[in-house]
Amino acid sequence: MARAKNVLFIMFDQLRRDYLSCYGHPHLKTPHIDRLAAKGVRFDRAYIQAPICGASRMSTYTGRYVNSHGAGWNNIPLRVGEPTMGDHLRKAGMSCWLVGKTHMAADTEGMERLGLSRGTTIGDRVAECGFDVWERDDGMRPEGPDGLYDPNGAQAYNAYLRAKGYGGDNPWHDHANSAIDAEGNVLSGWFMENSPRPANIAEEDSETPYMMRRGMEFMEQAEGPWCCHLSLIKPHWPYIAPEPYAGMYGPADFLPVNRTQAEFDAAHPVLKAAMTNPVSLTFARTEVREAVLGAYMGLVKQIDDQIGVLLDWLERTGRMADTMIVLTSDHGDFLGDHWLGEKSFFFDASTRVPLIVYDPSPEADATRGTVSDALVEQIDVVPTFYAVAGGDPEEIGHIAEGHSLLPILHGERTEQPRQIAICEYDYSATPLRGRLGVSVEDARCFMAASKRWKLMHFEGGFRPMLFDLENDPEEQHDLGDSPEHAGIREEMYGHLHAWFRRCDQRITKSRRDLAAISAKIGRRGVATGIYAESEADPERVVKYRGRKAQPWQDIVKNQSTT
Amino acid sequence: MARAKNVLFIMFDQLRRDYLSCYGHPHLKTPHIDRLAAKGVRFDRAYIQAPICGASRMSTYTGRYVNSHGAGWNNIPLRVGEPTMGDHLRKAGMSCWLVGKTHMAADTEGMERLGLSRGTTIGDRVAECGFDVWERDDGMRPEGPDGLYDPNGAQAYNAYLRAKGYGGDNPWHDHANSAIDAEGNVLSGWFMENSPRPANIAEEDSETPYMMRRGMEFMEQAEGPWCCHLSLIKPHWPYIAPEPYAGMYGPADFLPVNRTQAEFDAAHPVLKAAMTNPVSLTFARTEVREAVLGAYMGLVKQIDDQIGVLLDWLERTGRMADTMIVLTSDHGDFLGDHWLGEKSFFFDASTRVPLIVYDPSPEADATRGTVSDALVEQIDVVPTFYAVAGGDPEEIGHIAEGHSLLPILHGERTEQPRQIAICEYDYSATPLRGRLGVSVEDARCFMAASKRWKLMHFEGGFRPMLFDLENDPEEQHDLGDSPEHAGIREEMYGHLHAWFRRCDQRITKSRRDLAAISAKIGRRGVATGIYAESEADPERVVKYRGRKAQPWQDIVKNQSTT
Repeated sequence: MARAKNVLFIMFDQLRRDYLSCYGHPHLKTPHIDRLAAKGVRFDRAYIQAPICGASRMSTYTGRYVNSHGAGWNNIPLRVGEPTMGDHLRKAGMSCWLVGKTHMAADTEGMERLGLSRGTTIGDRVAECGFDVWERDDGMRPEGPDGLYDPNGAQAYNAYLRAKGYGGDNPWHDHANSAIDAEGNVLSGWFMENSPRPANIAEEDSETPYMMRRGMEFMEQAEGPWCCHLSLIKPHWPYIAPEPYAGMYGPADFLPVNRTQAEFDAAHPVLKAAMTNPVSLTFARTEVREAVLGAYMGLVKQIDDQIGVLLDWLERTGRMADTMIVLTSDHGDFLGDHWLGEKSFFFDASTRVPLIVYDPSPEADATRGTVSDALVEQIDVVPTFYAVAGGDPEEIGHIAEGHSLLPILHGERTEQPRQIAICEYDYSATPLRGRLGVSVEDARCFMAASKRWKLMHFEGGFRPMLFDLENDPEEQHDLGDSPEHAGIREEMYGHLHAWFRRCDQRITKSRRDLAAISAKIGRRGVATGIYAESEADPERVVKYRGRKAQPWQDIVKNQSTT
Repeated sequence: MARAKNVLFIMFDQLRRDYLSCYGHPHLKTPHIDRLAAKGVRFDRAYIQAPICGASRMSTYTGRYVNSHGAGWNNIPLRVGEPTMGDHLRKAGMSCWLVGKTHMAADTEGMERLGLSRGTTIGDRVAECGFDVWERDDGMRPEGPDGLYDPNGAQAYNAYLRAKGYGGDNPWHDHANSAIDAEGNVLSGWFMENSPRPANIAEEDSETPYMMRRGMEFMEQAEGPWCCHLSLIKPHWPYIAPEPYAGMYGPADFLPVNRTQAEFDAAHPVLKAAMTNPVSLTFARTEVREAVLGAYMGLVKQIDDQIGVLLDWLERTGRMADTMIVLTSDHGDFLGDHWLGEKSFFFDASTRVPLIVYDPSPEADATRGTVSDALVEQIDVVPTFYAVAGGDPEEIGHIAEGHSLLPILHGERTEQPRQIAICEYDYSATPLRGRLGVSVEDARCFMAASKRWKLMHFEGGFRPMLFDLENDPEEQHDLGDSPEHAGIREEMYGHLHAWFRRCDQRITKSRRDLAAISAKIGRRGVATGIYAESEADPERVVKYRGRKAQPWQDIVKNQSTT
């Protein structure tokens, strides 16, 4: 086997880790993803940096915490000038291409201030989070009374569908994400009563196979070391799967819901507010879970089959031998666990994601098929890819805050150099903020998880939450106000605050550069702290010795005579 | 009197607050600066954000803490894209010009990444910290074995001197900052034994009057609302003053040195390392202080006379009636206090600076000649100027972290909305780091000062320092390990950590925008959490009702027949 030359970075959206059989699902078999895991390392304790698409991805694509890049919620633009995966990789000689979703919102105001515009290579990269774009498709083209959620959503995909004969102005919605009834009425997949029905689309035309093919088309023509971010929307909602995946799974296959009445009754005020938002209240109904879970599992099964297609193709074309393959998700999905819908809280169901890394290099042979319990963050992928591109991650360590996974993949260490994983959630732009009566500044919360403990800190004067991940892996027993755990909370706050104090904005000088400067101080004539010239180190002051000058009085005299 | 239309932002470099008579110097009379104070508000508790030129100024010019912008030491470039005073003011219709020093280092790597280059309006602004440049002169052109400290230093000033007949390739050094002996040998002002001698230059050609004239030349031609940053290098070293200021002050005029043997003996390890660096050891010698102080005071006296010239000119030209005038310094100078030279520690002698604000508006009449004890930070000037330009500081409150001073100037409040002032010092690129054996990441320290207490936190495992500013204004008694003060330290750490947790990078969406978004959630078709279409709010889902679609099987059949 050759060394990894390229990187194929596969991301699904809202894919729960425990809905893959290699991560333990008892009924949903995902043999192809399991096959990738058998060839690589399956990370069991990988955390995303924000439990919502946009913010999570901005961290993954910059290798920086949300607290460092600031784009804390969907559609908060990533500030212009923030260095990205693409910027780093290109510097190391690797191209960086997007096929699919990023949820990037361009900082149009910042771009305008700097005179950058789309239609130029640099402007497009800044607007697209550092990627060169093969196809951007965020996988969302819903429409409401105020217009389209994303005017650029699914454009190429819709064109593809129309060319195949699918009708309407938005076949993304009317076919890929809806069913029909006997009269031909569109039954939108947004309404979960429709989730058990098959999507009104041929399976091969549905989103996952379409985007997988687009990825293969990219790789087929790509030359030179490349990173391909193949980023697929499913199993993100609308929850609806095409045949034969629709109806493939029923209640007997479902994981039991992880919620108790005691958990609801005793919930922390922020959690209680999340539990009682419209989405959560809907997911609290048994019929909703039952309607959704079959579709969700069908979509995961389709993903797995498509990974099978992809792996076959990679093997056939020789790309398995020279390409690192990473498979992950941007966050999970509560699906009713903890009385929550969606993903925007810190429980494992959302924040702990699948992460499988296959490295073809012979150095990785020792770890193939192993499971790593290392505390991993998704920001670790940037330095990993940078290392694959031939760079030394230390060169970008003043910008990218993660740690390369290569030492683990190559059996050189078993842990990452960190004691806690961080996840952050900014709910300033959500109705939750209003319901809690919290200011825009304070509508932020932070998770610090060690292997044993998970602390959740809330700005705005709320008490923290705390879970014992070892004795309470279901995260049912909040120890945030347990007197016996005061010391643990203090210890976890110590870690959290040390993290807040990290050096995250000094991105214009590397650590090596800074260390080198101190050795050179004073060699450019700033001769501070010297009393007598005779005491001076001649190395520092050589330029001043023996100079002559005319007295100023004579100069002024000359001025008046000339 | 009219309302303020323009802003004249005067900054001196290394000017100690207590070397002005309005701030209490008993022997050094500064009647012109005192006259400005009598027309405005003299802030008695104004802190800079870093005790070193470049970092302090980057905070002042961006309105953001060092921890937010990252440029923590001289010549660490300000990251491209960081919004500046100039960006904000121009948006509000006010131009923003530089006359003098900024210590800005351009982020050339970032500029290259974004395709920005000098010679364009935008590229020049990015490279010059957001200013349009009338004259940039950082006031430093020393030369050492590795070349010039600043190849762009004092270029126009040197050209001016040469045109006036001053000789040599660097009259900035050989004349403005050196004396001569009877044989015409240049006696460099860098060597403090030469400080009592007069600089070999006519007073009117020395740096302060030169730059003051350049400022007046700018203002004379300026149109429309403008902000002029008139930024002068003195009394920064080399310590040497022209006649008649040389020799104007002697030991009887000096403030007593603020240091005790007990302070030295008990010093915290980081402080001890600072006390024993070459500059500090030099300043520990009595002859050094005596040589330097006369020159320093002479330079301050010259500054005051030049402020007199400026104020007369402003009155004559009518600018006093429509121009806000701010006078401050980027930090102080220890001059041997606390066994330190230079400025890079957190004692008041360096971090608490003069700040005088004159507002011609009638609303400010009530506070003229008053002294404010409000806890002010120098980052407050950006929102103040933005308000003068007609903007609402809340519009930029997600970027600029300070608070406008106008409410204090207009008598609407007496305090700023903060409990602590922050100052930060990054010594990663200094020899101090090596001597302490601290990593580049950990070579950072932080001051949090309330009106009563000053906490100094050091990364790298050192204990904190703590001073009682009320009972120990000389900051001689470090209570950092006093058992009785454990509660105070905890309280101050609480403030410090709340500050670390602030929201400082979400700069692409204003607080108002974020609050507005939450009211609009779901109105673009993302209809999450709805089970039955019949339960849906028709406002959110109107676009899906009544749509018809062809069954996918028919579409596929058509594909094969066409």
